[in-house]
Amino acid sequence: MINLDSQYISFIKKNPLLAKQLFSGHFGLEKENLRVTPSGHLALTKHPSIFGPKEENPYIKTDFSESQVEMITPVCDSVEDVYNAITNLHNIVSLALPENEQLWPNSNPTLIPAEEDIPIAEYQTKDHPNRLYREHLAVEYGKKIQLLSGIHYNFSFSDDFLKELFQAFRKENETFQAFKNQIYLKVAKYFMKNRWLLIYLTGGGPAYMDGFTTVPDAVKTADNARIIKDGISLRNSSAGYKNKDSLHIDYDSFDGYISSIARHIENGRINSMREFYNPIRLKNSHTDQTLESLAEQGVEYIEIRAIDLNPLEKNGISKETLHFIHLFLITGLLSENNRLCPDNQQISDDNEEKIALFGLAQPPIMGCDHVETPFLEAGLLELNKMSTFLSELVPDDKELQDVISLQKERLANPAETIAAQIATKIKELGYLNFHLNVAKESLEEADAEAYRFIGAEDMELSTQILWKSAWKKGLKVDVLDRSENFLRLSLGDKSEIVKQATKTSKDNYVTVLVMENKVVTKRILAENDIRVPFGENHTELEDALLSYSNFAGKQIVIKPKSTNYGVGISIFKNFFTKEAFEEAIKIAFSHDSAIMIEEFIPGDEYRFLVMGDEVVAVLKRIPANVVGDGIHSIRELVEEKNSDPLRGTDHLKPLEKIQQGPEETLMLSQQQLMWEDIPNLNQTVYLRENSNISTGGDSINVTDEMDSYYKDLAVRAAKVAHAKICGVDIIVPPNPTDYLNAAIIELNFNPATHMHAFPYKGERVATGDKIIDYLFK
Amino acid sequence: MINLDSQYISFIKKNPLLAKQLFSGHFGLEKENLRVTPSGHLALTKHPSIFGPKEENPYIKTDFSESQVEMITPVCDSVEDVYNAITNLHNIVSLALPENEQLWPNSNPTLIPAEEDIPIAEYQTKDHPNRLYREHLAVEYGKKIQLLSGIHYNFSFSDDFLKELFQAFRKENETFQAFKNQIYLKVAKYFMKNRWLLIYLTGGGPAYMDGFTTVPDAVKTADNARIIKDGISLRNSSAGYKNKDSLHIDYDSFDGYISSIARHIENGRINSMREFYNPIRLKNSHTDQTLESLAEQGVEYIEIRAIDLNPLEKNGISKETLHFIHLFLITGLLSENNRLCPDNQQISDDNEEKIALFGLAQPPIMGCDHVETPFLEAGLLELNKMSTFLSELVPDDKELQDVISLQKERLANPAETIAAQIATKIKELGYLNFHLNVAKESLEEADAEAYRFIGAEDMELSTQILWKSAWKKGLKVDVLDRSENFLRLSLGDKSEIVKQATKTSKDNYVTVLVMENKVVTKRILAENDIRVPFGENHTELEDALLSYSNFAGKQIVIKPKSTNYGVGISIFKNFFTKEAFEEAIKIAFSHDSAIMIEEFIPGDEYRFLVMGDEVVAVLKRIPANVVGDGIHSIRELVEEKNSDPLRGTDHLKPLEKIQQGPEETLMLSQQQLMWEDIPNLNQTVYLRENSNISTGGDSINVTDEMDSYYKDLAVRAAKVAHAKICGVDIIVPPNPTDYLNAAIIELNFNPATHMHAFPYKGERVATGDKIIDYLFK
Repeated sequence: MINLDSQYISFIKKNPLLAKQLFSGHFGLEKENLRVTPSGHLALTKHPSIFGPKEENPYIKTDFSESQVEMITPVCDSVEDVYNAITNLHNIVSLALPENEQLWPNSNPTLIPAEEDIPIAEYQTKDHPNRLYREHLAVEYGKKIQLLSGIHYNFSFSDDFLKELFQAFRKENETFQAFKNQIYLKVAKYFMKNRWLLIYLTGGGPAYMDGFTTVPDAVKTADNARIIKDGISLRNSSAGYKNKDSLHIDYDSFDGYISSIARHIENGRINSMREFYNPIRLKNSHTDQTLESLAEQGVEYIEIRAIDLNPLEKNGISKETLHFIHLFLITGLLSENNRLCPDNQQISDDNEEKIALFGLAQPPIMGCDHVETPFLEAGLLELNKMSTFLSELVPDDKELQDVISLQKERLANPAETIAAQIATKIKELGYLNFHLNVAKESLEEADAEAYRFIGAEDMELSTQILWKSAWKKGLKVDVLDRSENFLRLSLGDKSEIVKQATKTSKDNYVTVLVMENKVVTKRILAENDIRVPFGENHTELEDALLSYSNFAGKQIVIKPKSTNYGVGISIFKNFFTKEAFEEAIKIAFSHDSAIMIEEFIPGDEYRFLVMGDEVVAVLKRIPANVVGDGIHSIRELVEEKNSDPLRGTDHLKPLEKIQQGPEETLMLSQQQLMWEDIPNLNQTVYLRENSNISTGGDSINVTDEMDSYYKDLAVRAAKVAHAKICGVDIIVPPNPTDYLNAAIIELNFNPATHMHAFPYKGERVATGDKIIDYLFK
Repeated sequence: MINLDSQYISFIKKNPLLAKQLFSGHFGLEKENLRVTPSGHLALTKHPSIFGPKEENPYIKTDFSESQVEMITPVCDSVEDVYNAITNLHNIVSLALPENEQLWPNSNPTLIPAEEDIPIAEYQTKDHPNRLYREHLAVEYGKKIQLLSGIHYNFSFSDDFLKELFQAFRKENETFQAFKNQIYLKVAKYFMKNRWLLIYLTGGGPAYMDGFTTVPDAVKTADNARIIKDGISLRNSSAGYKNKDSLHIDYDSFDGYISSIARHIENGRINSMREFYNPIRLKNSHTDQTLESLAEQGVEYIEIRAIDLNPLEKNGISKETLHFIHLFLITGLLSENNRLCPDNQQISDDNEEKIALFGLAQPPIMGCDHVETPFLEAGLLELNKMSTFLSELVPDDKELQDVISLQKERLANPAETIAAQIATKIKELGYLNFHLNVAKESLEEADAEAYRFIGAEDMELSTQILWKSAWKKGLKVDVLDRSENFLRLSLGDKSEIVKQATKTSKDNYVTVLVMENKVVTKRILAENDIRVPFGENHTELEDALLSYSNFAGKQIVIKPKSTNYGVGISIFKNFFTKEAFEEAIKIAFSHDSAIMIEEFIPGDEYRFLVMGDEVVAVLKRIPANVVGDGIHSIRELVEEKNSDPLRGTDHLKPLEKIQQGPEETLMLSQQQLMWEDIPNLNQTVYLRENSNISTGGDSINVTDEMDSYYKDLAVRAAKVAHAKICGVDIIVPPNPTDYLNAAIIELNFNPATHMHAFPYKGERVATGDKIIDYLFK
């Protein structure tokens, strides 16, 4: 019998918008991981300072221990978003740890030191309330048990959805908040009763290091760990981190809920709401976390505390699990409302304990009526509810149906559960080895993903990089306009709007307009005694011909204004006659209605990234090329070079693949080369004339070794234009100390910072961090 | 016999660039005008304070008297430019004078007070060198004579041109500067010898107020002036403002030139270079104006002091006269080089005197050989030189040939001269009346041209207006990019770059990007509790249909995103059903692939121009309309309204003409009207739905009367976006004190300031002045 709430279901079914809203909602995750050394010992270093003070970074804190990183996502509007958010935070933290440290991927701890050596999280002051609370916990529960780590899943329904329900189903004189309280109590009740199923399906802690605790039927491994025979989740068992006594609560009314907790506090079983370690809690983010303020303001969301880290997933939790928990909570809403009296609660607690420690044996589930139901039957009852309302309300949503199918498989076959898979791996590789391998792979994955912000791949790389830096440093990020790469970053009271990573409030408007206008920029630089290539644009043949005397004796380039291929270009590096000049002008005009005559300045072009008074990065750009090995063809060498995971197409990755198009073929043919030719060992073959990264060019970070004369020149050029954040392109002459022959080609008001963050060669410059430091210093 | 320098001519002829350069060069004018009251009396008010301190405004100063405005153009690169510059300055000054004051258009003074009441120009300190110098002049020459006003014409050849001549014709060991000195001496010599011709052709002072001076054969007029019988230029005669003794100078060498002046100073005939009142002077702007520094640095340009104000021209001098003077100086360069000994100089002085006082009688001209040549023959000799080199070097230049033809006519017929024409007018209208009429017409012309900067009509009106304000306040203006309306304004050490009049360094970049993005702007305003119309954009029919609940109960507009004509728009001002909403959505989608649903906010739209903390202007805009008189048809009323000189097309004038196109015809037909219908008296007929000025709308300045609540709101909205200069569009509800129903439609980062400067009704707001005050405060 599928006991769903038919009133709700049929009401929702009438309105497609309502069904859509039901399956949305707000999501937030909190995830803890111990930091671990390569040998598997708890890392005893300090929480990395790049994250700033724990009190101020809302996303990256420590939990009980200084060695226990806590990642907290912002509130997200979908499972997809919260999955991306926790993955991004996990990757950000992984890459910011001290060298060789990794995130321990299991809820159950790694090798930990003696009780007295477990470091309690430190705060800016010794008597910070968070510190005092942790010291209390250390005394009350011991430090060791605090190292159990897990995931908290915070959820609220769409308020618009609840308002529609309220309009339709409110009791007389009932307020919206009272209605909401009742909704969340209903869900909590369902959760408490059926959490054994959630633990069976999501538990990931079947093993622990010997000595951490004692659990029956836990078999020792070769590396001194113990695997609980049919165990699923040590943390959710009585050996986990729980209140000393099970705290039974009245879930039938909000007043009852509040007064039953109040009674536990009065009786001294817990000393505050904060210590109320129920697997589900009703919460309100606008309160001061006291019971009184919750009573006053009512429920805003619910928090699920029963979720284990899943070491099979690089980020600790799968999207499918997130969806399932969501469906589990929706099931609570859509189920018939049964009472959950304190007596029933003990039955639920017993079911939880049984599954946590012996779940793989699929013991029968005790019902509230004290009648046992076979495990499979009990589980299927709930999963079928889910299948049923999914088919009723969102018949086209295959993803959610698949989530339920997977759970049904795990129900039918215990070996398919997360816990069983982990136990198998541990048996195979050892407890430490398996988890350390996972940690290492997870770090490698984070590194491979370093340049992107998962879920924001539609935005520019420089914006994705900035976003990651922002979260790392605890800045709130609001997307003001995705397609325009418009972010607002906030830290405390201060906020800065940033477009395309470098368009900020620091630069004034007219400076940007000046930089946009090459002619004006050159004029202003020249007026300030900074050398720029002298040049003229012409649209009239006659005027162009008359300009000979302006260029006679100089090295010059004459070119059609909008050419791409070098067609129609004449370069005079030595003396040239008036006739040769005029001929070159005519050639250029034969390709375009506008031509440019520009002084040719020999040397290499470098990009200097200036912020304020400082050059934060210098890049040398080299045209697309391959270097021969005497064995492979040019085509093969290009393909080999393109296999670098940082090379992609369409600006989705920091470097672009070298193309094999007409430009490259032409460039080869100009060197009397073909694609199948085999260059000599160490012979460099250029595939492009231009050095742009966007056409497969190489970028080399030379920030540290660049002559300070040129860094000063770049800063001076930016200052002359009053630019704060800009890219300065400088031609450094063949003899770099021949300073007077350097020239500035361009000031770029929208420098592509990701070039510096992920160069082809040389160290990565953390441009996102630099921008934030500059904006918020 | 045409004694031209055949070497020069044939050299120049060989190179078209050289001929082009010969006829270019650098030009500057200084022009004095007395300020006069409507009754013709010298105005005794102070020099207007809007021009700033005389010491600091390089363009608008005073000459000897506080009542004598001096206008000084910047150095210009063509006759065209310098003509425009002096016209602009003349117009700027005319409009900035105290009410009822005008510029006296003749070199010879108007009604002047007694000697002791003529005010000497005042400076910031009583012992300012300029003040002391003027006090010396008052004693030495008397104040009255100082009131003679005129035009100084400064000129230099293109340096590139002179360098080419130098390369070809330099003497051994001669420096370029020495060559240049010699060139300008040659020109000066020609000028001194032939200036009688220039005076004949340009002189404009044949009359004076009785009592100003005494000249033979000066016939009294009815209004107590005297017309010199055949006179041309009192100012250039011995009765004009000259050194007490004619100072003869050695023009054959630069050393000779310097030492001969030095001798006059030593002898006490003048007390400094400054008092050397020769009709032509060699000058260098980089010197401290002493003879010593001129001797050291050499000649940079020449100054012609013999040009009279021409009251036949509203700005005091015609373009044709400017061209003729230029040709006259070129003739000096291209003529054979004759010696001009001191004896010859007396002959030249005598010729000048003869022409200045009796020129219309065409007396014979004494040659250096003491042989007289008939006037016509002597004149034609020089004019034919000009015709000759023009045909040789610029055969296609009809404009310059016409200039010479006109001079030839004046030679042949004295009645055609400027002086004769003036004398005729004076006889007809009286001395005061004629000149006061000219002054009044000139002021009216300045007013009609108030919105434009002559010669910059290719730039936006707001930029032209800003440029005028800049010159008025003595700011240097560099055009950095004409097509982009890019100016640099400088005052002392400070400079500000401005694009399109309001894009300045005051605004930060990201604020502008925010204002550019309507969605982000609305979000930020709303976050700061400023009401904006709530709205949604949709590209999917299904999503749009689902949005009913977001709008139910509101007044809304549903429209295709890019409609122009009101087609496909539904406005719901009262309750609407879901069915009606969905129908409207479908209609909108039938016209466009994107639609907008927006809250409808009833009221009138006003534009507030904010600068910093202040609303500097408020404008009400009304859709294109005519008001009936019961007599004329709509078409006639439109034509009548369009005859306003401030209405033009293509944004060339502050207001646009009302069109008679399909939009207007459609709008009429929606009101059951046709073009030939005759509206009732006072019936307003709208020709457009939208209130844009660009489609013929009316603008009404309401700055002073606007409720301060809305001004504060505008400033607050700008501040929320961190905008410094912006246009804020506010809908003021039908009951204006119903403040909570006001809303902000838009923040505009590039407000069209000319709308405020030249409204259809109400006072003009000097937006250019306001911008400069804001930038340079």
